[in-house]
Amino acid sequence: MMWSNVKNKELQERARAVIPNGMYGHEAAHFITDDHPQFFARAQGGHIWDVDGNEYIDLMCAFGPNLLGYSHPEVDKAAIDQIRLGDTMTGPGAVMVELAERLTSMISHADWAMFCKNGTDATTMAVTTARAHTGKKKILLASGVYHGAAPWCVPFKGGILAEQRAHQIYYQYNDVESLEAAVREADGDIAGVFATPFLHEAFANQELVNPEYARRCRQICDETNALLVVDEVRTGFRLGRDSSWEEVQVRPDLSCWGKVLANGHAISALLGADAAKQAASEIFVTGSFWFSAAPMAAAMKTLELISTTKYLEDTIRVGKLLREGLAEQSARHDFELVQSGPVQMPQFLFAGDADFRIGNAWTSAALKKGAYIHPWHNMFICGAHTEDDAAGILEATEFAFRWVKKNWSSLSPNMNLMKMLASAKA
Amino acid sequence: MMWSNVKNKELQERARAVIPNGMYGHEAAHFITDDHPQFFARAQGGHIWDVDGNEYIDLMCAFGPNLLGYSHPEVDKAAIDQIRLGDTMTGPGAVMVELAERLTSMISHADWAMFCKNGTDATTMAVTTARAHTGKKKILLASGVYHGAAPWCVPFKGGILAEQRAHQIYYQYNDVESLEAAVREADGDIAGVFATPFLHEAFANQELVNPEYARRCRQICDETNALLVVDEVRTGFRLGRDSSWEEVQVRPDLSCWGKVLANGHAISALLGADAAKQAASEIFVTGSFWFSAAPMAAAMKTLELISTTKYLEDTIRVGKLLREGLAEQSARHDFELVQSGPVQMPQFLFAGDADFRIGNAWTSAALKKGAYIHPWHNMFICGAHTEDDAAGILEATEFAFRWVKKNWSSLSPNMNLMKMLASAKA
Repeated sequence: MMWSNVKNKELQERARAVIPNGMYGHEAAHFITDDHPQFFARAQGGHIWDVDGNEYIDLMCAFGPNLLGYSHPEVDKAAIDQIRLGDTMTGPGAVMVELAERLTSMISHADWAMFCKNGTDATTMAVTTARAHTGKKKILLASGVYHGAAPWCVPFKGGILAEQRAHQIYYQYNDVESLEAAVREADGDIAGVFATPFLHEAFANQELVNPEYARRCRQICDETNALLVVDEVRTGFRLGRDSSWEEVQVRPDLSCWGKVLANGHAISALLGADAAKQAASEIFVTGSFWFSAAPMAAAMKTLELISTTKYLEDTIRVGKLLREGLAEQSARHDFELVQSGPVQMPQFLFAGDADFRIGNAWTSAALKKGAYIHPWHNMFICGAHTEDDAAGILEATEFAFRWVKKNWSSLSPNMNLMKMLASAKA
Repeated sequence: MMWSNVKNKELQERARAVIPNGMYGHEAAHFITDDHPQFFARAQGGHIWDVDGNEYIDLMCAFGPNLLGYSHPEVDKAAIDQIRLGDTMTGPGAVMVELAERLTSMISHADWAMFCKNGTDATTMAVTTARAHTGKKKILLASGVYHGAAPWCVPFKGGILAEQRAHQIYYQYNDVESLEAAVREADGDIAGVFATPFLHEAFANQELVNPEYARRCRQICDETNALLVVDEVRTGFRLGRDSSWEEVQVRPDLSCWGKVLANGHAISALLGADAAKQAASEIFVTGSFWFSAAPMAAAMKTLELISTTKYLEDTIRVGKLLREGLAEQSARHDFELVQSGPVQMPQFLFAGDADFRIGNAWTSAALKKGAYIHPWHNMFICGAHTEDDAAGILEATEFAFRWVKKNWSSLSPNMNLMKMLASAKA
């Protein structure tokens, strides 16, 4: 079937009439390329179908939530069975306790759990808990690292006041020296230190964690009684089956989880160590749907499958095939494609492609051959992706490398994106 | 069957081990009474069953989300059908555009919609949009009015900094003079004015809106180019089928919706007028599950039923029966029960019951006879509640009035609640 986007364009036109900009947030397709579809009709396993009926091998996995495969029969059955019994009720179901027990038994540093809806809910709760715990104000954050879209952390400043970001000190990720400088700047007033398990920012190559930096984060918190917060919203259960910094033997006081917890059903969580439990009991946080039982039932099943299946090893195996195949293709076609991050959470950027025009053209071309690849955001392999899917992606990218070479002189940047990035710097 | 709470107590004990305080937020039962169950097993129509198998006629309706009846077959079918096609995908479904079109066609002031997960998401987006629209800072808010649980609006201050609430000026709800004073204090720097459709705060009698106050809110915004924000998270589609202030002929620039939008499936929304669309396109807001299709499909069906059924008239009819019956009972038993707010969103408080000991005892007694009533939070009648349910509640409250009279000397306040209220004042 020929790729087409007639219905998608019609829907985008209608959307512009009733949604500001036609779309907002991380899934706004006008910031990706002109060809990336905005609207999807169906998702199954590791594949997705847009509203024009085009099928893609989907490397975005809903920007993370799809861990075990879309429309997972067991996870969805758990959610649907619970919807039929009772979802959002006047109180939680017993499943909330079971879920907290299961998470705290899986995650070494965690003694307790609080559930919420957005990753941002969990990171914001972590800030408040850290301040309640210490009675201090300053939060140390790695510069440019995404922790959500609340005023205190949103990367774009429209409508945000300086006061809403007061008492936040920024250091460079992985850079112990800049971390020390932030500690000196805080002058004894540290409530918490935030980190992500590795550096996985948009528009940039990813960087694995420097163990010395991770250890120093822990030490600073030990020395000052501040809380170490590791934001696992993007990484959780994609690098391992425990908290990601177990690998470097650093245990946080608080960790923030979301996206994959219920394989796409809406739930996020703040997990904490006993030392932070009293403070967590002194903050007030809530939401209309935070206690809903269906996503918790889906999370129970997801966590069971995380523990009992080889989903993780599968994502690594498929990710490796893809990395090797792309390295071979880019070398053969004379492109400097930089593949960074863990193989199961890859970022593909072309060296020197400052305005992403090569990446845009390459991902647009691959798209038309059935591979959904993002030009500037990290991607995710899910447990349903197969070796055939890796081969399918590589077939599409082989076409894309040739296409870009042939059309080199006509490549151009995405002006919507350029405008957004300029506003972020302003 | 005898009322019992053995399983509930066991679960509460387990919960205390893995959840701070055993529970948090608005559904923490230890802030209601010792008898109110924390955990529920099932919900159907206007009834709810706790984990011990006790059945209740439920006047909380999940603190709002249950509008048409729990486990509504048509709404849940829409959600489940969409889950099977695709829920959280790499982009939204066409249903997102359809939902924005439907909401803007139903709500007179609204020209556009943005969807999110929590009521707090929508109110926070309104603050940011108002500041982006005006380039000004100050937000005028009615004192003590709940707009969510983010640092800028949360009613309890644990872990919150003064800076996070900077540029917020408080006035008294319904009081034009105090509103004028707030305007003077803002000294030309007004970004937005917040209001709820009526005063529906916990621990206090409810108050319907003074039309003069509503009109003055509008005028101030017209004179200063600020945005008028009406927070409909609790009231939406419970007072009418349009924005609640249509009744007093005042149209907001922005309105915040949640709770009932999908009859319990997790979705909230910010709706806005064209004048605010440019500003809304300049803010960055997002969440992992904000674009999920299943709650949007459930919302489409909910809105259809809102438009085509007599659910609203039914809630008013049942609410009236309850109000009349309780007035008769309380007079006959010599209690001064103050029933405030619209009949379909009633608040029941005993006059002079400063520490809620009468309310606690009365609702605990009614609970054991199968009526779930809240001692200090407003309640909700849903479209599935019947005249029989009203009669069932009244049977339980008849018992409760007698019980309280007989046990008058042994009544005592809930110390968990007293401690929480003291901390809020501190």
